[in-house]
Amino acid sequence: MTMHFFTPDRYHNTLGPHEPVLRVAHGDTVSAKTVDAHGCDWRGEQVAVKPNPQTGPFYVEGAEPGDTLAVRFDCLTPIRDWGFTSSMVAPDVLEPRFARELPAREWIRWRIDTTSGTATQETHAGALGTFTVPLEPMVGCFGVAPSGGQAISTATSGPHGGNMDYRGFRNGVTVYLPVSVPGALFFIGDGHAVQGDGEIVGTGVETAFEMQFTLRVIKGKQINWPRGEDDVNIFTVGNARPLELALQLATTEMVRWLQGDYGLELHAASLLLGQCVRYDIGNVYDPAYTVACRLAKRWLQL
Amino acid sequence: MTMHFFTPDRYHNTLGPHEPVLRVAHGDTVSAKTVDAHGCDWRGEQVAVKPNPQTGPFYVEGAEPGDTLAVRFDCLTPIRDWGFTSSMVAPDVLEPRFARELPAREWIRWRIDTTSGTATQETHAGALGTFTVPLEPMVGCFGVAPSGGQAISTATSGPHGGNMDYRGFRNGVTVYLPVSVPGALFFIGDGHAVQGDGEIVGTGVETAFEMQFTLRVIKGKQINWPRGEDDVNIFTVGNARPLELALQLATTEMVRWLQGDYGLELHAASLLLGQCVRYDIGNVYDPAYTVACRLAKRWLQL
Amino acid sequence: MTMHFFTPDRYHNTLGPHEPVLRVAHGDTVSAKTVDAHGCDWRGEQVAVKPNPQTGPFYVEGAEPGDTLAVRFDCLTPIRDWGFTSSMVAPDVLEPRFARELPAREWIRWRIDTTSGTATQETHAGALGTFTVPLEPMVGCFGVAPSGGQAISTATSGPHGGNMDYRGFRNGVTVYLPVSVPGALFFIGDGHAVQGDGEIVGTGVETAFEMQFTLRVIKGKQINWPRGEDDVNIFTVGNARPLELALQLATTEMVRWLQGDYGLELHAASLLLGQCVRYDIGNVYDPAYTVACRLAKRWLQL
Amino acid sequence: MTMHFFTPDRYHNTLGPHEPVLRVAHGDTVSAKTVDAHGCDWRGEQVAVKPNPQTGPFYVEGAEPGDTLAVRFDCLTPIRDWGFTSSMVAPDVLEPRFARELPAREWIRWRIDTTSGTATQETHAGALGTFTVPLEPMVGCFGVAPSGGQAISTATSGPHGGNMDYRGFRNGVTVYLPVSVPGALFFIGDGHAVQGDGEIVGTGVETAFEMQFTLRVIKGKQINWPRGEDDVNIFTVGNARPLELALQLATTEMVRWLQGDYGLELHAASLLLGQCVRYDIGNVYDPAYTVACRLAKRWLQL
Repeated sequence: MTMHFFTPDRYHNTLGPHEPVLRVAHGDTVSAKTVDAHGCDWRGEQVAVKPNPQTGPFYVEGAEPGDTLAVRFDCLTPIRDWGFTSSMVAPDVLEPRFARELPAREWIRWRIDTTSGTATQETHAGALGTFTVPLEPMVGCFGVAPSGGQAISTATSGPHGGNMDYRGFRNGVTVYLPVSVPGALFFIGDGHAVQGDGEIVGTGVETAFEMQFTLRVIKGKQINWPRGEDDVNIFTVGNARPLELALQLATTEMVRWLQGDYGLELHAASLLLGQCVRYDIGNVYDPAYTVACRLAKRWLQL
Repeated sequence: MTMHFFTPDRYHNTLGPHEPVLRVAHGDTVSAKTVDAHGCDWRGEQVAVKPNPQTGPFYVEGAEPGDTLAVRFDCLTPIRDWGFTSSMVAPDVLEPRFARELPAREWIRWRIDTTSGTATQETHAGALGTFTVPLEPMVGCFGVAPSGGQAISTATSGPHGGNMDYRGFRNGVTVYLPVSVPGALFFIGDGHAVQGDGEIVGTGVETAFEMQFTLRVIKGKQINWPRGEDDVNIFTVGNARPLELALQLATTEMVRWLQGDYGLELHAASLLLGQCVRYDIGNVYDPAYTVACRLAKRWLQL
Repeated sequence: MTMHFFTPDRYHNTLGPHEPVLRVAHGDTVSAKTVDAHGCDWRGEQVAVKPNPQTGPFYVEGAEPGDTLAVRFDCLTPIRDWGFTSSMVAPDVLEPRFARELPAREWIRWRIDTTSGTATQETHAGALGTFTVPLEPMVGCFGVAPSGGQAISTATSGPHGGNMDYRGFRNGVTVYLPVSVPGALFFIGDGHAVQGDGEIVGTGVETAFEMQFTLRVIKGKQINWPRGEDDVNIFTVGNARPLELALQLATTEMVRWLQGDYGLELHAASLLLGQCVRYDIGNVYDPAYTVACRLAKRWLQL
Repeated sequence: MTMHFFTPDRYHNTLGPHEPVLRVAHGDTVSAKTVDAHGCDWRGEQVAVKPNPQTGPFYVEGAEPGDTLAVRFDCLTPIRDWGFTSSMVAPDVLEPRFARELPAREWIRWRIDTTSGTATQETHAGALGTFTVPLEPMVGCFGVAPSGGQAISTATSGPHGGNMDYRGFRNGVTVYLPVSVPGALFFIGDGHAVQGDGEIVGTGVETAFEMQFTLRVIKGKQINWPRGEDDVNIFTVGNARPLELALQLATTEMVRWLQGDYGLELHAASLLLGQCVRYDIGNVYDPAYTVACRLAKRWLQL
């Protein structure tokens, strides 16, 4: 159960079968620095390029195709006192006719104060004035090397994870990812100090992070799409367009989970989900949209 | 501020310019009985036909095209000790290949106990056994006569409301609807004792209700899509396919609301929504899907 | 086999259970005048309002719910020497970011010459100059009263037909529609002198028409969506959003047709359609999109 | 203008920055063998794995990022006397409820006769019997190395080309692709002896091919999505889900083409496309759908 501190000196804009930067054992914890979505680091220096440069990959010993990688987000901490967002709702989330009124977008600077736990946008935005929200740190983009020898841009996402931009990937959550290559090859980056549902301006409050996470291999367990859990919920994630396909993928993965691990038949899973399921919209901005299908653990005390 | 008690003797399967069953004044409260989605009433008698037979319409004096009708859901109460759901997740919410495994759906009976505030499905559903959930009463289908002389089936929804099947239409919520005909012509029915996000089995726990609501006219205020609020949130609703269009309609209506009533420019509305918006998925089952765009009122203490 | 000449003095903006303007027998032919999509008639007078005012309905004796109405388009003729189009591609058919560059749309006048069989747009459109295309007359909006007592706007479409804006509804084609009310109640209007696939500017060359068509009832034959045929092809039509749902509806209706009338099992229908099917995109502009699934009759000489 | 004959001994299942198998000059012609979609070669030997193993990549001297690669399909010839298709329409192209009736799919063998120019399915398919269609050879999957260092599965497609499964990629067509890496790195494979619109059974008649094509570099010309032309038409191709996004991408690329190369303003392009555009549906089966936006050259004699 070693703790590894890792400061990157190179970054990746694809998730693929790249040379590992570190080999870790099952159960090890990594505390790694990440740069912001535009490649600017904790000192404010431009050290990488868009989109969403990733720290890693981390090779997890013992992980083989057909296994599942479990990643617990132990502690996700912004390590720069400023971040940025886009200034304008994306045309993709507005009615096409209304979207024609949109001005060009700009980059807005936010002050991040980890002592008070807040982010403040400092321009004077009309009636809104300056504007402070509590920090809710999350990881926008992370994942493993995809299947079939692919190297997939950090702009998008898929079964391997990637740029999902889902608020639910936050402190205390354990994520499960399908392993496609030896060592799994875990990547992480694109921290958001806070973000609304859907990432509808195309960013959260983008900043550099210290990401501390623990990696475990679940041998012989095969999953199809990312899964996650915390003390209260289990959830599954579908990444695709259109939005209903993302929802279908997440729902199907949840049904498989209930069948496989909780012994529920399709009928019982339907009764349960029908009245108790919750859906979260991760992003409706990236090339693949993200929907989470979520169920409270209280219903699973079988 | 009269209170009207109303027991229907006829029902409608379209929302349209039908003969009013009652004329009420601005500010009046109505307590009306409604039958379940299949037309079975509080005594268990089949008195109407599918889909979602509606009580009403109620003519609200003073309401004219271009106004907004405000409907406060004062008290929504199941008035039958049983309800039903479908037994199977709809093929629309699963991956097409997985959906091929689905057996035919059946109707499942649930016991409703308003004393304990619970609904219990009474079949033995494998590992799930019998299964009890708290009641969260809501209205599946309600709305006003649509524009242009249309009469639209209670199976679907649109700017006028209709079969939105959104959990957020619950006790204590005030809904706003665009008025298209004199008197607005308000319809209500299809109560659900409880329902998950998305209405993914195609039903909530369907039962007969006593629906108490208060009707007010907001003169000269024009909206495009249903809006709502309670003590904590404001929200807007888009009804359409695909799911992203429903989301676009809801988001656009929220931006218009922030611009029109809260004095926020597009820039300020973007900054606020970008980090603070929440989306709820009403239904992904009906001919039109429903998405709500929601914002906590705490952000609007301007 | 009577021929009826009909000149309307009122128009409908919904397809619904309206008072018939004429009762005709099975096999009768009607030659009816129609106004343009904005309600301007053959003399250039504004006599009705948007959208797509319809002539009719025509009550066809003997037609009952569960039957099919066959409508042969014998002769569709523009009867005004000018038409109009919109000047600008709709934002719905462009990438959201690109669509932001669109200027506001204007109405463009076209000269229609039925002698030469051409339509000419008369503004000087840059390098394109004036611009002449051959006439290909078609019906944008027609259909029967929908099911369930609905009255549906002529802006949109459904199983009953409506505003499908499909180039394939042209001279010599026979269309089949599902009958939902006694007499079927057939409506017609919105003639286009010519139109591209998708109706991507939101109009064809809109003008007044003389529409000659022959109405027949096919007793006891039940269909789900509009079907059509001419000497060369059979086709089915799906009206919905998203575009893939329209395609799914059309394809499913074609499979049913091959199963029901041509005795092909699912396997044989798959082999045939897999290598021989053609798809046409009717419109991607209206609230419901339209896709036609088309198969050459040469493959059906079984 | 050298002619290169090339017989592969290895294959790729991603389009990416792989080691070139051959370097060719601007204007050279290549005649290369390709295996079928499942990796079975011209002798019927299994030499590669699914999906759509590619011959190549071919390095074209002088091609640099920002250029366009022109590929003329000189002669596409099936070189095996049998091919295969799937037996069943994919669930994705049918209504979800109808799709539940589908049996499992099987592989159906077709006899290919290049002398008579026909493909014949040899099972007895009910009323359809055996069944013969004319050959219309096409390339299912081809393209260049994508941008950003990506390696993208041959199951899917994007701006770089890939598995587009569009009938329009046939003899005599010249295709244009955006160059993202030095040498462009052109891949080709997955020949179909014939295929219907949409590839709705998930295959064409899959077989081994001799693909003869001529490669040219257009220096300094930048395009966003694949384009093509033959003697009669120009066309653009969008690859994405949902289907309307594919159509939007194709339409936007066509507008850019008309603006950039034909000097048409947005207004003139709109007038022209509005009445003259044609859309083809490439595939509605793969992870990304394909739509072509097509315009007859007769309209461009400016």
